[in-house]
Amino acid sequence: MAIIVKKFGGTSVADLERIKNVAKLVMKERANGYQVVVVVSAMATVTNSLVDLAKKASSLDDNEKLAEYDSILSTGEQISSALLALILQSYQVKARSWLGWQIPTITDNTHSKANILEINTDKIQEALNLDIIPVIAGFQAVTSNGRITTIGRGGSDTTAVAIAAALKAERCDIYTDVDGIFTADPRIVSTASKLDKISYEEMLELASLGAKVLHTRSVIMAMKHHVLVRVLSSFNEDSGTILTNEDKQMEQRLVTAVTCTSDEARITLSGLPKTIGVTAIFSLLAEHGINIDMIVQNSSNKGRNIDITFTSGKADFHKLVSILEKNKSILKYSDLDADPNVSKVSVIGVGMLSSAGVAQEMFKALADKSIEIIVISTSEIKISVLIAEEYMELAVRTLHSTFKLDS
Amino acid sequence: MAIIVKKFGGTSVADLERIKNVAKLVMKERANGYQVVVVVSAMATVTNSLVDLAKKASSLDDNEKLAEYDSILSTGEQISSALLALILQSYQVKARSWLGWQIPTITDNTHSKANILEINTDKIQEALNLDIIPVIAGFQAVTSNGRITTIGRGGSDTTAVAIAAALKAERCDIYTDVDGIFTADPRIVSTASKLDKISYEEMLELASLGAKVLHTRSVIMAMKHHVLVRVLSSFNEDSGTILTNEDKQMEQRLVTAVTCTSDEARITLSGLPKTIGVTAIFSLLAEHGINIDMIVQNSSNKGRNIDITFTSGKADFHKLVSILEKNKSILKYSDLDADPNVSKVSVIGVGMLSSAGVAQEMFKALADKSIEIIVISTSEIKISVLIAEEYMELAVRTLHSTFKLDS
Repeated sequence: MAIIVKKFGGTSVADLERIKNVAKLVMKERANGYQVVVVVSAMATVTNSLVDLAKKASSLDDNEKLAEYDSILSTGEQISSALLALILQSYQVKARSWLGWQIPTITDNTHSKANILEINTDKIQEALNLDIIPVIAGFQAVTSNGRITTIGRGGSDTTAVAIAAALKAERCDIYTDVDGIFTADPRIVSTASKLDKISYEEMLELASLGAKVLHTRSVIMAMKHHVLVRVLSSFNEDSGTILTNEDKQMEQRLVTAVTCTSDEARITLSGLPKTIGVTAIFSLLAEHGINIDMIVQNSSNKGRNIDITFTSGKADFHKLVSILEKNKSILKYSDLDADPNVSKVSVIGVGMLSSAGVAQEMFKALADKSIEIIVISTSEIKISVLIAEEYMELAVRTLHSTFKLDS
Repeated sequence: MAIIVKKFGGTSVADLERIKNVAKLVMKERANGYQVVVVVSAMATVTNSLVDLAKKASSLDDNEKLAEYDSILSTGEQISSALLALILQSYQVKARSWLGWQIPTITDNTHSKANILEINTDKIQEALNLDIIPVIAGFQAVTSNGRITTIGRGGSDTTAVAIAAALKAERCDIYTDVDGIFTADPRIVSTASKLDKISYEEMLELASLGAKVLHTRSVIMAMKHHVLVRVLSSFNEDSGTILTNEDKQMEQRLVTAVTCTSDEARITLSGLPKTIGVTAIFSLLAEHGINIDMIVQNSSNKGRNIDITFTSGKADFHKLVSILEKNKSILKYSDLDADPNVSKVSVIGVGMLSSAGVAQEMFKALADKSIEIIVISTSEIKISVLIAEEYMELAVRTLHSTFKLDS
């Protein structure tokens, strides 16, 4: 019998009424003739409350402390998985909850963002053979030494895809509070429409660029293990969006989606001696744990100096500026200009692989609206531009229309 | 190095400030040159909230459902143990939390009131050897099959005593929100005083008779394994009460404590044919899961019938009366008289073992206050009487004074 893994996020299990709805979706799929394995997140807001409690207790500045933090955080999924199993049982369906250590899902000991090494599906398979629905607590696992780990925020998606891969499931349904993947954020673009299909690569770019529906790691894992993933809502009957390998239909679209994020800040250093170069800057920032995203470098007039502009997470902005100012005598730049009010707008589509001219069309459309591009960064299936934050919505709507995504 | 086990109840770990106080008590004991093992309950009110949540999700009418219930309930101690370990670490003390399954503490699979079969202390001992303070989640354990169990309400006391026995600890300190064991409830008797010592047997009677400081099972376990237990408050520096074997000092006291409870209700059946007898009644009630406590039986005038009076938990009162009424035609009694407004008042003391006359003195003191005794029940070190509830406080104060316990 074919297996379907169904994963329900925090809003889908937010209270007992929502969990009863989940139980009904599970029973319905089972009535379709599938063996169903369920993966659940913690009830909405529970994880955040637990994080707050742990952080109030102590700083979390070493792996031993993070081990205790993981033990605290994992209780969220421990409760939601047992509640769903209880409710399924109250509907006369055989079910039982499984914690990370009970399966076991083995990770390394990088607490709070552990990496899955191995999933032993023997016991889950045994439960399925006995007609018992396994309800797996997502996000949590265990080290080979028997300590509880968590695999990072959004980790329940990754748990679900990993379980689906290990069980060779026919499909992994990721239930959330949106209908699927859209051509743009419907709150910004009223004419945005839901995509029936999207390629793994496009989804990966979308996830990296601020679309919060799926976690990047889960997409990478799905791509690697060829897991057919469907993203859909537990609040309605919509069929959602299927993540799959590219096909003809997808390639015919020049651009699949337009996305934007305001999570980044811009820094420009002028008059940096070529002898010092960018490496010095980026090693310095790496030492302080600051990640850099977009980078552009121009030679300045005299030929001996360069200007460099880059972006980094907005959360690190003040720390970043202070580090650069403290090290001015070492880096020997003449001027520092920083701006947190910027946005990154991107167009994504596997169609770009076979079509030139997308970039030119994008730049022209933005120029027509007098939107200045500060930095450009591209991949094979994506073009991102950094612009002033106040133009973000206009830029997204303009590009959505330029690439004929309006429904 | 000698080991001391310290157990902290729900009010002692109610919030982060209280947990910090617990950390300081632990560090202080350690500075005295002991190896300290900590056992914690869930933060006050947490367990009740989890019970409510589980009960709202489903009835808990079989062992499979109770297995999920145990998984939910055990998160309370999972959180408090990790928080205390975190706080100890933030004070630069090596510490780590231990869950029931990590130790492991093995029980049978009677979920929600499992019985401890075995505790493997190897890992705890290893931690102690590495100078790490083990912080053990009380109340929870695991079956040999790897499912989480809980050992019943008040179970953290039992966990602590069992761990102390397994580790051959020098003492087991049970921290609570009262100063120790008193000669009577200080809310009823203003002259009640704290006992420095009490025998296991006396404590057992007290625990069975409504003193909520220690759980009966933990006292039985302490007695069986000769664990020296101290009951004390985490809110002040008082030295508490030591539970130990009887000694000269204890035997010199005729009565050690006066206790009372209003948890029971009285039932009297008159004119019950001797041919039917009490066995029929008590088998019937046992079938319905109703426990009977005090029993008194009188032959009535005609010689062929008997009258019987007994008490049972107040919570079962309506169910009990309804069962007896439904079965009147089978039991053939002539009259049923029931009263939930009764109290049981008891005097306890190992001194009774070697001194006659305590009962007589007790009955006379009550008679002098015109308090009618409905039922009497005695053990070697205890005399209990059932009286009208409205006289309870007066009876306790009178006996406290009669047996010279006023401080």
